[in-house]
Amino acid sequence: MRLEKIVVVGVGLIGGSFALALKKAGLVGEVAGIGRSRATLDEAMRLGIIDRIGAFDAATLGGADLVLLATPVGQMPLLMQTMAPHLGPQTTITDGGSTKGDVEAAVRQFLPAHLSRFVPAHPIAGAENSGAGAAKADLYVDRKVVLTPLPECDADAIERVRTAWSACGATVHEMTPSRHDQVFAAVSHLPHLLSFALVHDLAQRENREEFFRFAASGFRDFTRIAASHPEMWRDICIANKSALLSELEQYQRQLEELRNALLVGDAVALEAVFAEARTVRRAWAEGKLS
Amino acid sequence: MRLEKIVVVGVGLIGGSFALALKKAGLVGEVAGIGRSRATLDEAMRLGIIDRIGAFDAATLGGADLVLLATPVGQMPLLMQTMAPHLGPQTTITDGGSTKGDVEAAVRQFLPAHLSRFVPAHPIAGAENSGAGAAKADLYVDRKVVLTPLPECDADAIERVRTAWSACGATVHEMTPSRHDQVFAAVSHLPHLLSFALVHDLAQRENREEFFRFAASGFRDFTRIAASHPEMWRDICIANKSALLSELEQYQRQLEELRNALLVGDAVALEAVFAEARTVRRAWAEGKLS
Repeated sequence: MRLEKIVVVGVGLIGGSFALALKKAGLVGEVAGIGRSRATLDEAMRLGIIDRIGAFDAATLGGADLVLLATPVGQMPLLMQTMAPHLGPQTTITDGGSTKGDVEAAVRQFLPAHLSRFVPAHPIAGAENSGAGAAKADLYVDRKVVLTPLPECDADAIERVRTAWSACGATVHEMTPSRHDQVFAAVSHLPHLLSFALVHDLAQRENREEFFRFAASGFRDFTRIAASHPEMWRDICIANKSALLSELEQYQRQLEELRNALLVGDAVALEAVFAEARTVRRAWAEGKLS
Repeated sequence: MRLEKIVVVGVGLIGGSFALALKKAGLVGEVAGIGRSRATLDEAMRLGIIDRIGAFDAATLGGADLVLLATPVGQMPLLMQTMAPHLGPQTTITDGGSTKGDVEAAVRQFLPAHLSRFVPAHPIAGAENSGAGAAKADLYVDRKVVLTPLPECDADAIERVRTAWSACGATVHEMTPSRHDQVFAAVSHLPHLLSFALVHDLAQRENREEFFRFAASGFRDFTRIAASHPEMWRDICIANKSALLSELEQYQRQLEELRNALLVGDAVALEAVFAEARTVRRAWAEGKLS
């Protein structure tokens, strides 16, 4: 497979790394970049991530083999609407959003003529840094990418997206959008919410400096994801509201159980929870659970 | 200052590293080790952490310059009771427990004749690994140690403990026990509880393998402390129950606010919480808060 022309909408960490990886794999001809910020696009040109700066017009989108939407998910409906008139029938479209039910809904609403060519995808490759300057060709090596194809999707469109991500070094999985959103609410979205909540809670204290002065390595790891991008995570929470609420409520019940055990000094119950958590966490880290 | 004879009760990561660091600093003569497990004590001998295996008797404790209790905090009351008859008046006693209000209470109950010589301390140096085999001479370099001396404490006992920890490379702070317990409930004990809770919650799911299969680097960092020692953390939670409950309840209120924001789709409120958390987390990581 060869992609003569691809278009990356949003040339940040995700989109930029995708372009660099495909270039390195020798799979791609020209890469056009579209984005909100001219400075970012200029930087992407300078870094060799994109070959030219494009726009939502026929010149850029016409004849493209693949378009990747790599913006925060909240922007995608408007972008789909804007690009719809310029998309040709041979163009496969995909995205890099962290939620998939909302992407499916937006595709059905704003790209109804392209349902068979749109393959929603989620590359599992976050990083503390974002932006074109953080993009790198090996970001996806040994990472997972989840495709959530619609029933209407053409097999060759799925194959094109699958081949592109495999060429980036990723292993490709398939799930339904709703299962995807449930799993990621639990293992990604909820932990981010919990970590943001802890730091925010401490930030409100009088003498907060004294609290933070004694925060050590456990706190550092627990709160690393609280330095994540607020706009991106706002969009993810809103987009995956239903599954995230369900996970949050289950977690709140779990905390209430722990609070009750603490209140009555039930050391046995606490140790049982901690011991099972440790066993499962260690099995996961050793690759014995997945 | 020179310590001709010290006794380490519990020769694991904390006690073993203390002994190794003092030896490296040339501050100590003989180190005797006391512990539950003969195998651990033999290993500590083999590794040169201790010079002889002792017991709760006059031969071991009599004439000691310093005794360090480095066991889980739940064991300390019984250990204090057991050692009390054999402690001489010149011996300074300290501990390495993660909670301090309970240690003070135990000292008042079980070592009333030694109030002026007991200096409670908390070295802030956790690690994923535990046991004598994980001990190392540089564990405390650039770490913090918090002393929570009682009002009855002799200045020279405090000075002896302070000098010992400084010789290990640590910076020594002083706080009241109650302030210590409040601060560490917030920045250490609560995050551990939250991390254990998340992993335990996921471990109960049907098809939990599918959840864990897609857990990535954010999850890994958030849950690293869920692999901590269950018995140790059970003891810490029980020992610091009051402050931990207060922190947990405040956190539960914070989660309820986030849940309400999610329920009504209040993107502005969510982003405000996330943005403040990110700002403060970054300032902390850059050393601009502490």
